[in-house]
Amino acid sequence: MMIEESTFRVRYAETDAMGVVHHAAYVPWLEVGRVNLLRAAGAPYTTIEARGYLVVLSDLQVRYRWPARFDDEVTVQTQLTQLKSRQLGFSYRVVLTGTTQTLIEATTTHIVVWRATMKPTVFPADLHDILRPWLEMSAH
Amino acid sequence: MMIEESTFRVRYAETDAMGVVHHAAYVPWLEVGRVNLLRAAGAPYTTIEARGYLVVLSDLQVRYRWPARFDDEVTVQTQLTQLKSRQLGFSYRVVLTGTTQTLIEATTTHIVVWRATMKPTVFPADLHDILRPWLEMSAH
Amino acid sequence: MMIEESTFRVRYAETDAMGVVHHAAYVPWLEVGRVNLLRAAGAPYTTIEARGYLVVLSDLQVRYRWPARFDDEVTVQTQLTQLKSRQLGFSYRVVLTGTTQTLIEATTTHIVVWRATMKPTVFPADLHDILRPWLEMSAH
Amino acid sequence: MMIEESTFRVRYAETDAMGVVHHAAYVPWLEVGRVNLLRAAGAPYTTIEARGYLVVLSDLQVRYRWPARFDDEVTVQTQLTQLKSRQLGFSYRVVLTGTTQTLIEATTTHIVVWRATMKPTVFPADLHDILRPWLEMSAH
Repeated sequence: MMIEESTFRVRYAETDAMGVVHHAAYVPWLEVGRVNLLRAAGAPYTTIEARGYLVVLSDLQVRYRWPARFDDEVTVQTQLTQLKSRQLGFSYRVVLTGTTQTLIEATTTHIVVWRATMKPTVFPADLHDILRPWLEMSAH
Repeated sequence: MMIEESTFRVRYAETDAMGVVHHAAYVPWLEVGRVNLLRAAGAPYTTIEARGYLVVLSDLQVRYRWPARFDDEVTVQTQLTQLKSRQLGFSYRVVLTGTTQTLIEATTTHIVVWRATMKPTVFPADLHDILRPWLEMSAH
Repeated sequence: MMIEESTFRVRYAETDAMGVVHHAAYVPWLEVGRVNLLRAAGAPYTTIEARGYLVVLSDLQVRYRWPARFDDEVTVQTQLTQLKSRQLGFSYRVVLTGTTQTLIEATTTHIVVWRATMKPTVFPADLHDILRPWLEMSAH
Repeated sequence: MMIEESTFRVRYAETDAMGVVHHAAYVPWLEVGRVNLLRAAGAPYTTIEARGYLVVLSDLQVRYRWPARFDDEVTVQTQLTQLKSRQLGFSYRVVLTGTTQTLIEATTTHIVVWRATMKPTVFPADLHDILRPWLEMSAH
């Protein structure tokens, strides 16, 4: 399986008065994983935007399993799970680095938009080709 | 139907480089709606915590329909959809205030935790009773 | 004195593991006050941007006096303190609503930028005229 | 000079509708630098809190020099500039990694609080000793 792994520490600003990471603070972590997968695949998101596209999030699902705390080192494991002409899908597992303790599991779906018009459009063929290996190897 | 409505304006800090509200920034809005529903029902979240409980988010689902922009006035419409002995559920629709334009739809599920031990526990009966009318009237 | 007052409740997402509002979470509150002052004055920030300008923050100073907590109702008191051809300044006091308890005091300085070039420019004369009364009445 | 350097990439969630990093989003970066300096010095902030203390921010000053953008690699250079019995001070420069381009300069002041009472207290002598070399070497 082809999984992108991004590792970083929990920031104090991401915690809340329960003493653990606020549930909304995990969502940008998924973005970190997704952006790093695209870069690793050879299709950096900055390049996608420079070519006039936006990849817009349309659906988000998160299951919270175990709370992360300040200063914990966490790893976002990201996989590409869907690659259609107009839609991308990713799945994520965030774990305490170096352990099997799952903090959250999540999925996101995205549509491709032409920035000039903000209308949905087709993901360009060359980027499709670049990402396809990540999809196929995730499926097995 | 019993729906709590919370209205406020989009903050500039909630937007991103796409020129619209970042997808993660909607998640605290759901919390605003939920907190206001609990207050309106007579079970303010501060009281719940003062009694030693935490209500912890375990599941989040968001469908993004239309982007909000800086300074838009938005309304979070919140309903209680689940009230079990150990679990609460809410559903949300966020609209452009005064219109039928839906920005996002969302659901959250929560478990009740005893703060001292961080272990799941039963939601106290009196709070249950206070919230029940909001559930029943949401169902119809 | 001409002071814009914006009142709202502290969000749970704005707290941190110390049990109080995280110091970074106050900064967007200043923006809420500033944006509301500009709207009250008749120069809404959306209009300023629609005319091709950005008002960019160049300097921020915050003194933290007393911690705000979840669900506190707070009031941001905003004054225009500087109105030059290329620079604006604001001062802020955030209090617990209806009390004299100061939570933070702050000042911000801003420069006017022409969006197309991202170069500093002169604030348009008509907006200057609209804002001048807010400056003069703040000074006394 | 003893400078702690923390390097990471700008997250999309940290940008705003101006297309650059929102001014409030830099503030948690300072915290990352400060936390990493304390860890490097041998006085991790988690240990300080575990011993019953909080280090609370009392003053923040930021000068914004140049905007960071999504995906930029940035480095927070942190120095300890003040170490009194009841007060700590830090200064920061955030640069585009590997360049001399300064994005922001900042200073923060902090007081030591005994968590149980939330009252100011004296920073413990052993932690003082651990941090002193960082202060002295910053001064020259």
